[in-house]
Amino acid sequence: MDGSAIEKLITDISKLPGLGRRSAQRIALFLLKNKDKSLLPLIQTLESSHKLISECAKCGNVDMINPCNICKNLNRDKKSICIIEDVSDLWTFERTGFYKGLYHVLGGSLSAINGVGIEELTVTKLINRIKENEISEVILALSTTMEGQTTTHVIADKLESFKNLTVTRLAQGIPIGGEVHYLDENTLNTAFQSRKKVI
Amino acid sequence: MDGSAIEKLITDISKLPGLGRRSAQRIALFLLKNKDKSLLPLIQTLESSHKLISECAKCGNVDMINPCNICKNLNRDKKSICIIEDVSDLWTFERTGFYKGLYHVLGGSLSAINGVGIEELTVTKLINRIKENEISEVILALSTTMEGQTTTHVIADKLESFKNLTVTRLAQGIPIGGEVHYLDENTLNTAFQSRKKVI
Repeated sequence: MDGSAIEKLITDISKLPGLGRRSAQRIALFLLKNKDKSLLPLIQTLESSHKLISECAKCGNVDMINPCNICKNLNRDKKSICIIEDVSDLWTFERTGFYKGLYHVLGGSLSAINGVGIEELTVTKLINRIKENEISEVILALSTTMEGQTTTHVIADKLESFKNLTVTRLAQGIPIGGEVHYLDENTLNTAFQSRKKVI
Repeated sequence: MDGSAIEKLITDISKLPGLGRRSAQRIALFLLKNKDKSLLPLIQTLESSHKLISECAKCGNVDMINPCNICKNLNRDKKSICIIEDVSDLWTFERTGFYKGLYHVLGGSLSAINGVGIEELTVTKLINRIKENEISEVILALSTTMEGQTTTHVIADKLESFKNLTVTRLAQGIPIGGEVHYLDENTLNTAFQSRKKVI
């Protein structure tokens, strides 16, 4: 590990999310072993990503056009906004393909531990979007962690004053394919309290 | 995941060793979210790595000079060569600091499944190094997997004809800090067969 350039390469790779020093070493050696076949193409991809991809000014999605393909799509329901924590959640929604409205990337959820306050999230931008456009429903699709649920409540409070706006959140209960004896207490309790009439 | 540049970014990242598609997505979003603070510095590091770091023509180490700092170091014992599978093994040796000789990076171990034959490894280069230099000991420090042990035997066979050359391999037995009741049968058997006289 002599050579400051190698050390810097490993350190910079290990800063990427989910990578420790050992994985960073492995990736660094892989790239150095195949400099022209791996390192060079990766540099080119990262460079063109830097040039071509940007954040959608409206919803926070990442795309090659701004506003993004979803915001620009005339076939999407412009009256519905689905609030998600991250772009990866948007991808999960889009993979299923059942949702036809717009999105709003919040940028995370409120967390005292991680120092994420309301200013770190795109809440003001969301409120302006609702004010300036004719929105009839806001769907809060945040995680059901402690942080996600707090965020859901805080945003719901802020949207209370809007007339003619329905604010919903995802249903909570047993996941499809879930077995009752594996459920945690909270989920079982929630599913029981929200039970639905069958007959 | 609209936008071919984003798809390409994720695909290229997922080609790195140890990364699946989910981790690649996470890293891609991290880079795109902090384009100037993360993506740009990473591009610069990769570019300077491509420019500055190369493989040592003698031993196969990676370094900013060629021959590398270890091969060039006058204080190292030039008569001893330690054979390792990969540069990361060299780093492990160097972290401990007890070994003062030279290295030879083999580039893996023989594996029928992975299609690694003797030509894929730097065995010919090793033999030439031994022929052209005054080497008194070759230490085979390969893994004790099936592949590593086969490779050790094949290389030992090839080095048999050299006069005045000692060929050794790492001792096999209970790892330090190891508990006997957790040992696998092979290790226990090896450790028992190679037991040492205490008194």
